[in-house]
Amino acid sequence: MPLDSSIPAHLRCPRTRHRRVSDSWKPPYPAFSAKVDPTVEQLVMAYFGVQSKGEATHGKACAAFQKIRDSLQLADGPARHDIVQFVDAEGFLNLIVVAYWQDPKAHQNWNNSPEVAGWWASDDRLNEGVGYFREILSPRMEQFETIFTHDYGPFEGVSILFGNMSEPIFEHGYWGSMRDRLPVSQNDTMEPSGKLTVTQGQPQAGGRVIISGHQNLTLIRSGEDWSRTQGEERRTWYEDIEPVLHQGMNFLRDDGLEVGCYVNRYCHHIDENGKPLEKGFGVSLWNSLAHLEHWGESHPTHLQIFVTFMRNVNKFKDLTLYHEVSVFDASNQYFEYINCHPKTGLLRAV
Amino acid sequence: MPLDSSIPAHLRCPRTRHRRVSDSWKPPYPAFSAKVDPTVEQLVMAYFGVQSKGEATHGKACAAFQKIRDSLQLADGPARHDIVQFVDAEGFLNLIVVAYWQDPKAHQNWNNSPEVAGWWASDDRLNEGVGYFREILSPRMEQFETIFTHDYGPFEGVSILFGNMSEPIFEHGYWGSMRDRLPVSQNDTMEPSGKLTVTQGQPQAGGRVIISGHQNLTLIRSGEDWSRTQGEERRTWYEDIEPVLHQGMNFLRDDGLEVGCYVNRYCHHIDENGKPLEKGFGVSLWNSLAHLEHWGESHPTHLQIFVTFMRNVNKFKDLTLYHEVSVFDASNQYFEYINCHPKTGLLRAV
Repeated sequence: MPLDSSIPAHLRCPRTRHRRVSDSWKPPYPAFSAKVDPTVEQLVMAYFGVQSKGEATHGKACAAFQKIRDSLQLADGPARHDIVQFVDAEGFLNLIVVAYWQDPKAHQNWNNSPEVAGWWASDDRLNEGVGYFREILSPRMEQFETIFTHDYGPFEGVSILFGNMSEPIFEHGYWGSMRDRLPVSQNDTMEPSGKLTVTQGQPQAGGRVIISGHQNLTLIRSGEDWSRTQGEERRTWYEDIEPVLHQGMNFLRDDGLEVGCYVNRYCHHIDENGKPLEKGFGVSLWNSLAHLEHWGESHPTHLQIFVTFMRNVNKFKDLTLYHEVSVFDASNQYFEYINCHPKTGLLRAV
Repeated sequence: MPLDSSIPAHLRCPRTRHRRVSDSWKPPYPAFSAKVDPTVEQLVMAYFGVQSKGEATHGKACAAFQKIRDSLQLADGPARHDIVQFVDAEGFLNLIVVAYWQDPKAHQNWNNSPEVAGWWASDDRLNEGVGYFREILSPRMEQFETIFTHDYGPFEGVSILFGNMSEPIFEHGYWGSMRDRLPVSQNDTMEPSGKLTVTQGQPQAGGRVIISGHQNLTLIRSGEDWSRTQGEERRTWYEDIEPVLHQGMNFLRDDGLEVGCYVNRYCHHIDENGKPLEKGFGVSLWNSLAHLEHWGESHPTHLQIFVTFMRNVNKFKDLTLYHEVSVFDASNQYFEYINCHPKTGLLRAV
């Protein structure tokens, strides 16, 4: 059977740019992309966070986080969301809701509602002993791609909303395939332009800081679910893969700026009661897709992840991996930090 | 200063295919290409080998090898040559002359001279208790590229003949740059077509076997010179790099066919008296440039070489690395094996 293209049929168009590999390319193993309905034109992916440090403020953080979670239930709230946590390099606990909409209008209605807009705008948020942030990004479907190791569920990320998976895809198994999966790559190099700009506040001073992004800023959420692994596969995950992945995630967290990574969070899913689940993801923002490519292809921290994985690839059956990658128009990005320490999110990068 | 292109000015032409990276690409460290005179249109690279096993035949092998070396001195002989040795997986010693011409006409005159043509054609070669082979390949300059870590000599391979080195080049430091350095990549994917064909003899039977190649068969000679390294750099070469490189070379030697590598020889230079020098190279023939790319980019044996090198890159100052890569028209390849064991060269691949 011929391979499917990761680029959905309705987004294929005459090309001025070719894929990296020739048409005779045969991927060495199958992979899949989430298949979106043609009626979906743009997504909204919002990362809402509560930041705190120490036992004493944990209760406050949980209460604040619950406020955010409650707001998801309001009219036009997200179609789905994940709850995750991440302890950053400064030792702060970051509780994060990752919320997704397939309808930007619905997000706009929700985001502009007095309950949501008013709550975030209130000066009360400056005086609750915890930090807050929201990072809201809206890729057009031409600017979005996914890859999955399995074509059965449960899927992850925004793809759960799509409800369908492609046949085995052509564009994977080679460096550059991430770019080739993005429909916009048919005619665009996705070069970055502009730069991160503080539009309100002072990152070093705390308080409320709003940052505007730039053309073709790039996000990757790259995740793994080891909940179904057993025996040798499970041992390999815990002893051989995860420690190396962790090192790579820490490099990006601490030294990512030198390779064009603005921020990286190595998150673990938690359930409604805060209990860790056996799945997680790294989510990072980059100056450009090219920077993300270059790190992935050449930096020892990532290559070691890749080599370790490739060495063990035959052991994997139930470990599921996926990623979602987006590039964004400058106008489709919003970053706000309230009472956060100056190494939070994009604050460290401006 | 703007970067130089690895593609010589006289071979640049309007493109139908773009480089993998955008024009804003900045290599993380400098590298250089040998700069050829525009009057050179085609090279000839010839690998002449003598194969033997065991102490008892060593004298015979040396005498036979001397005959080949003597023939280089005939009129229109090669402009330069290297002498190397390689012990193959079957335990045979292969003494090899690598000879280069910048003028195919001169090679033709030499090769067709009675002394050379007659010697190779003689049935005496079948009865001397050693094996012989010659692999003669002639890339057009559009089909040839080099990369060097240093812009000072002594250079290696055919590039010594060119006598000049480029300024720091644009096309390196990313997967795909090898392809982008080949002038023909401006308008051609270099897809292979046809297949290796035995045109005379039977590989399993020994005796004389002639094999014809196919369109876009690919050769890489990838070398290293550690003779000037000292102290920690020298220790790193011997203890951290060479063992990993050796493993990768052995993989290609033994199991290369599964990744599209017909033959790999990990050769060490020797001087006029057979004494090993502190430099060597792997030379391999591939079904296509794409197969070579794919192995380099994804196979654990090569990635481990690459990761180990990148981890130690700051330690290197005097270790010099280079490669020369060619793709060939089907008509510009000639492979002949006389009395060689059936795993020699392309014999193992047909």
